Amino acid sequence: MLEFAHDTLAQRVLFASGRAAENLRSEVARFGSPTVMVIADKPETAAALCRGFEPALVHTDVAPHVPVEKAEEARAAARNHGVDLLVCIGGGSTTGLAKAVALTSGLPVIAVPTTYAGSEATPVWGLTEAARKTTGVDARVLPAAVVYDATLLATLPVESSVASGLNAVAHGVDAMWAPRTDPINQALAVEGVRALAAGLPVVKADPGDLAGHEQCLYGAYLSAVAFASAGSGLHHKVCHVLGGAYDLPHARTHAVVLPHVLAYNAPAAPEAARRIASALGATDPVRGLAALRRTLDAPVALRDHGMRESDLDEAVDLVLPVVPESNPRPVTRESLAALLRNAWTGADPAEEPRP
Amino acid sequence: MLEFAHDTLAQRVLFASGRAAENLRSEVARFGSPTVMVIADKPETAAALCRGFEPALVHTDVAPHVPVEKAEEARAAARNHGVDLLVCIGGGSTTGLAKAVALTSGLPVIAVPTTYAGSEATPVWGLTEAARKTTGVDARVLPAAVVYDATLLATLPVESSVASGLNAVAHGVDAMWAPRTDPINQALAVEGVRALAAGLPVVKADPGDLAGHEQCLYGAYLSAVAFASAGSGLHHKVCHVLGGAYDLPHARTHAVVLPHVLAYNAPAAPEAARRIASALGATDPVRGLAALRRTLDAPVALRDHGMRESDLDEAVDLVLPVVPESNPRPVTRESLAALLRNAWTGADPAEEPRP
Repeated sequence: MLEFAHDTLAQRVLFASGRAAENLRSEVARFGSPTVMVIADKPETAAALCRGFEPALVHTDVAPHVPVEKAEEARAAARNHGVDLLVCIGGGSTTGLAKAVALTSGLPVIAVPTTYAGSEATPVWGLTEAARKTTGVDARVLPAAVVYDATLLATLPVESSVASGLNAVAHGVDAMWAPRTDPINQALAVEGVRALAAGLPVVKADPGDLAGHEQCLYGAYLSAVAFASAGSGLHHKVCHVLGGAYDLPHARTHAVVLPHVLAYNAPAAPEAARRIASALGATDPVRGLAALRRTLDAPVALRDHGMRESDLDEAVDLVLPVVPESNPRPVTRESLAALLRNAWTGADPAEEPRP
Repeated sequence: MLEFAHDTLAQRVLFASGRAAENLRSEVARFGSPTVMVIADKPETAAALCRGFEPALVHTDVAPHVPVEKAEEARAAARNHGVDLLVCIGGGSTTGLAKAVALTSGLPVIAVPTTYAGSEATPVWGLTEAARKTTGVDARVLPAAVVYDATLLATLPVESSVASGLNAVAHGVDAMWAPRTDPINQALAVEGVRALAAGLPVVKADPGDLAGHEQCLYGAYLSAVAFASAGSGLHHKVCHVLGGAYDLPHARTHAVVLPHVLAYNAPAAPEAARRIASALGATDPVRGLAALRRTLDAPVALRDHGMRESDLDEAVDLVLPVVPESNPRPVTRESLAALLRNAWTGADPAEEPRP
């Protein structure tokens, strides 16, 4: 039986390489002559893109994970300037700060992403206070419009493109079995992974290749839409816990953990596995992802990124209670310990025992 | 280069067989205790589904193509009863009447579809006055929520399921090259056609098979979403003209014309053709659709459905000016005349000459 509840959220996407300034201007104009607050991680990018309208302020005090005091400062600045439209230009942290302002003010957001983080396509917000991250879902924080321009990605260091791109692949793969997954999310996720798997090797070979970045950006958008609707699956629960407890780098943690979660779940989710494999241009999803990762020279082991062996036992204790009930394969203390150790040592997931 | 503008519209979809009454009740309750006007083509279906809330009125004066005088009557009834929520239960004409009321009143709509028409998934409205149909697009007429229940489809005569289902396939196929098509529309369309091609033969073999109807309903929804976003391609322009000028039956006209438009366009749109073929489980899209149509015993010739041979010349004159500029293969007077004649005689599209 096919049974689901799916909320499609309203959002306008403008996708055109080299036309961010033009498209941003036209989207701003849809709001009349608004008082605009620009939030940007790089003032020079903001200056280059804000043409044809004059921001009331350009706010560049952006930090990872949206510390609550930074959010309060940005909210106060928006109030003090009588802002009625937020424009964010940057990566996930920048989008996250704009969402934090939108959350309490209800102000609309136009997002111009400069990484594959995908936050611009989701109604998920996050705030960090005293090293604890709180996240929530609120339709008001979803940007009303997204202006995608692959030329903004073409100057990313290739390691950042790879890590950010594999983080986007993880959005798509985990959406296949996340708690609220449904056929619509799965169709979008598969298309997102397909585009990312097509684009990432092109970007790796030539970091300035626009067509490659376009595929990645399009794929990152769809994977994020699917992820936001489907919720956090096992992969995101693992990464959320590890990132928070051991201060690991976000995108790299996702890049390392994904193949181990995929190898663990694939045998118990054959249809999802078949579709992920097909999106990766392979017959076996685990080998397909391994091949993509080899091409990309992707990060392989958590021990290379700040996690200590002595953290592993505690990590099992922290992850176990948050494993989604919907996970296609039951997760035991033993299987989780093996999964985390393999991610820590960088074992080859294709060689891991299948059930 | 990848370039597009895509507006995703907000809509909630509840999909569960046998649970229409329960899901309708919960969706109505999201509006508080609204004064509800039910618009239904079958009062008995409406009575069975309206449980747990008491409609202020049940309006059953529904006619095909939404005659403007019927729309005015329904609008007056809504005003007179102080209605603040519309619930429509029925096929495309019923949804269309609710949209006509929403268009002028701004009232929200909850749709419970009983065919594969797909109107519930689009912001397109239509009104007929003095035998002329006017259509338009307005986000306000898009139902806020859709309650899908395959048990409501399981009592359709099999010929209606086949014609309505092939009309839905046409939404998906034509979306692949329609004027505003983009990769998102194409991904949704392909998934919709895949589900319809899986479900329709099941429904044909056993018209009461719920799983088959679920696949068709899910596929019809996605194909309609894709079609609404992509706009009318060549197929829909042809069918709109023929239907209006010669009073042909809507779904059957689409079922007959589609293979001829597909055969005409496929050679000029190889990637779309490959994806349509794959969705149909075939290597060639034209042969794939022909095989599906044979399985379904689909209508084959316009001459069997009220069009006269003497109409053909005029039909060419009427269609030619509205052929979309975006059509992947140029359309000439000669090629259009051949296409329409083939649809009229019911020629095998797989045997038609390719460029």
